[in-house]
Amino acid sequence: MALIVHKYGGTSMGSTERIRNVAKRVAKWARAGHQMVVVPSAMSGETNRLLGLAKELAPAQSDDTYSRELDALAATGEQASSALLAIALQAEGMPAVSYAGWQVTIKTNSAYTKARIESIDDEKVRADLDAGKVVIITGFQGMDEGGNVTTLGRGGSDTSAVAIAAALKAHECLIYTDVDGVYTTDPRVVPEARRLQTVSFEEMLEMASMGSKVLQIRSVEFAGKYKVPLRVLSSFTDWNIDINEEARSGTLISFEEDEKMEKAIVSGIAFNRDEAKISVLGVPDTPGIAYQILGAVADANIEVDVIIQNISKDGKTDFSFTVHRNDFAKALDLLKSKVVPALGAQEVTGDARICKVSIVGIGMRSHVGIASKMFRVLAEEGINIQMISTSEIKTSVVIDEKYMELAVRALHKAFDLDQPVA
Amino acid sequence: MALIVHKYGGTSMGSTERIRNVAKRVAKWARAGHQMVVVPSAMSGETNRLLGLAKELAPAQSDDTYSRELDALAATGEQASSALLAIALQAEGMPAVSYAGWQVTIKTNSAYTKARIESIDDEKVRADLDAGKVVIITGFQGMDEGGNVTTLGRGGSDTSAVAIAAALKAHECLIYTDVDGVYTTDPRVVPEARRLQTVSFEEMLEMASMGSKVLQIRSVEFAGKYKVPLRVLSSFTDWNIDINEEARSGTLISFEEDEKMEKAIVSGIAFNRDEAKISVLGVPDTPGIAYQILGAVADANIEVDVIIQNISKDGKTDFSFTVHRNDFAKALDLLKSKVVPALGAQEVTGDARICKVSIVGIGMRSHVGIASKMFRVLAEEGINIQMISTSEIKTSVVIDEKYMELAVRALHKAFDLDQPVA
Repeated sequence: MALIVHKYGGTSMGSTERIRNVAKRVAKWARAGHQMVVVPSAMSGETNRLLGLAKELAPAQSDDTYSRELDALAATGEQASSALLAIALQAEGMPAVSYAGWQVTIKTNSAYTKARIESIDDEKVRADLDAGKVVIITGFQGMDEGGNVTTLGRGGSDTSAVAIAAALKAHECLIYTDVDGVYTTDPRVVPEARRLQTVSFEEMLEMASMGSKVLQIRSVEFAGKYKVPLRVLSSFTDWNIDINEEARSGTLISFEEDEKMEKAIVSGIAFNRDEAKISVLGVPDTPGIAYQILGAVADANIEVDVIIQNISKDGKTDFSFTVHRNDFAKALDLLKSKVVPALGAQEVTGDARICKVSIVGIGMRSHVGIASKMFRVLAEEGINIQMISTSEIKTSVVIDEKYMELAVRALHKAFDLDQPVA
Repeated sequence: MALIVHKYGGTSMGSTERIRNVAKRVAKWARAGHQMVVVPSAMSGETNRLLGLAKELAPAQSDDTYSRELDALAATGEQASSALLAIALQAEGMPAVSYAGWQVTIKTNSAYTKARIESIDDEKVRADLDAGKVVIITGFQGMDEGGNVTTLGRGGSDTSAVAIAAALKAHECLIYTDVDGVYTTDPRVVPEARRLQTVSFEEMLEMASMGSKVLQIRSVEFAGKYKVPLRVLSSFTDWNIDINEEARSGTLISFEEDEKMEKAIVSGIAFNRDEAKISVLGVPDTPGIAYQILGAVADANIEVDVIIQNISKDGKTDFSFTVHRNDFAKALDLLKSKVVPALGAQEVTGDARICKVSIVGIGMRSHVGIASKMFRVLAEEGINIQMISTSEIKTSVVIDEKYMELAVRALHKAFDLDQPVA
């Protein structure tokens, strides 16, 4: 019938009982006539266990001394779970073979712990599929040119699955996870949140980057680049659910946006409280300022999210950005000790008790007034906006973290996300 | 100074604390100017944990369906411990790199779960050693021609270490384990047992095959074939013991036997109670009988140890052999149901409550009366001998298992093994 890629997360692979259920589900798809490729994560807890051992041996792992060995270590988790899944399939009477990233080969660059996939050789995989085998490929890892094991970083198994689906030109890549799809917002914050049957690639990208932890952002980028149809669905349904019903469940990340645009303007509310904001005040407004501030931050390996620079007044401007809370102290210290004195800025301030709330929707592109409606809703709730950042399909605000739930619920209701799609 | 291979067993690698001690010990050797290659086993318990998971998924693993995946699974244990040891060395400030078998490459045949090493490429390893790095190579595993991961079977890390030492023409291969050397017999049975400072390769081979579990037999064969000087020593001494003292400790398995032969006739008493004996009685004494009996047993993957066929009487003979106790019922059943009816033998008998006791010594070659002395000692203790088997450097008897300790102690004393070597 078709070539299908299934990806199962660590929770779905969390015990032999669960691995057996994954095997039964995959076997069902194979018996329905599909060519099946499966990308499993490590059994839940395993990666943390392994890296915990490494941490005991080398408590300070800030530099790159350990990165090659950390990758070699962490990669064993998926190698074990992949072999176990092959064994479970064989026990179900389904021929199966597992490959580590280096065996496929999945070629990556040499950026240990955060490597990028460069190419995937599909020869072995196709031969096995044609021979009627289920092919299991370790997620999260590959091999660099020097023959070293690399990993793609946390959550990299999603990216592996999508990249493999792209290389094999798979009909669809199904990401089985512990939620049953993509929601208009987090149901734990807004009980009325609805599951989206389809979401556009661009919206999903904004959702993923905003901390809706359904899919790793790089996997969505990959899917977009190679137009891989991607479906997020639950691995906790009965394995023997009707295959046609299963194939329509969850949320499809779609690349055909035409109809969609007419229907909903805002698709979802994303939020993130893992960030902290930093402002450099009274910066002389001369060329190269942004680079002087953010270059130093980037050199310290700190990722920056929102960046805002306002118009200048009296030859001075204010420059603000957000970083991950884990990097907050480090970034603040760096700016105070080095950057600001060199710049001649007046002051550096920071606040870690903030959150970012965003409305996301393809429809926003052609509808005026969406952003202003957002600001009005927040004002009506008495929520002060500290920073604003916009893109074609997203409007984000930074607010006090204590108002996060209130803001998300109010926006979810105001944009009718709790109502069924017409 | 010299190229040295260290091998550490699972117990020595059993916790991060112990791995750290291994790292300190290896670093000490490296800082003394040696080029160091280290072959670690998986952390103790890890291989069993992994194979236990596989067993839960596929309880019956008698056929070869699962063997490729079982190897891929089991190999992750050493990959993880090797990476952890590299990290521990790096944390000690000692540059180190770990390689899985497929990375070196250690080429094996495709006999999954019991593969044999065919070749070892030393190029990468030498380059790293020349660059001042400690090189860690996973024990127990390799890669076949098809790029599949293979394992050498239980205890295979010893074999890996010796094979690597042979390929690199190492000065010495040090096997660190939980005993401090090779003893004249098991000190738990005979408290007066002495540690041997040196033992000949041939004696060690007999010791190893007799269940003195200090070294895996294949590693000793390998050492003999490639004349790799091998030393068994304790990993539980302080890591910072004087390096010259450490280098002389344990037991050296030597290839120079000249002096030795004059000194001691019997070097040790080996014993094994993991066996069972089977006798086929009243077999027509015609050509091909041994093959008909043992061929069927071998086809069922049952290993046979002692084999005895006595002279025939009235055209009939009795044929006896021993197998591992785990295979006893299977072998007995096979003979009763298939082999014996086809042969026209009278009867098959078996006994699992036996043990094998051997005296081992290079000196036996040129000394008459050693075997008869052994039989006299056993007779004086009232121990009946059920089977006898001899080789140039070993005389083995099968006796009732309840007399095992008694026999071992009496022989140990009778051959003066409790006395210091003159």
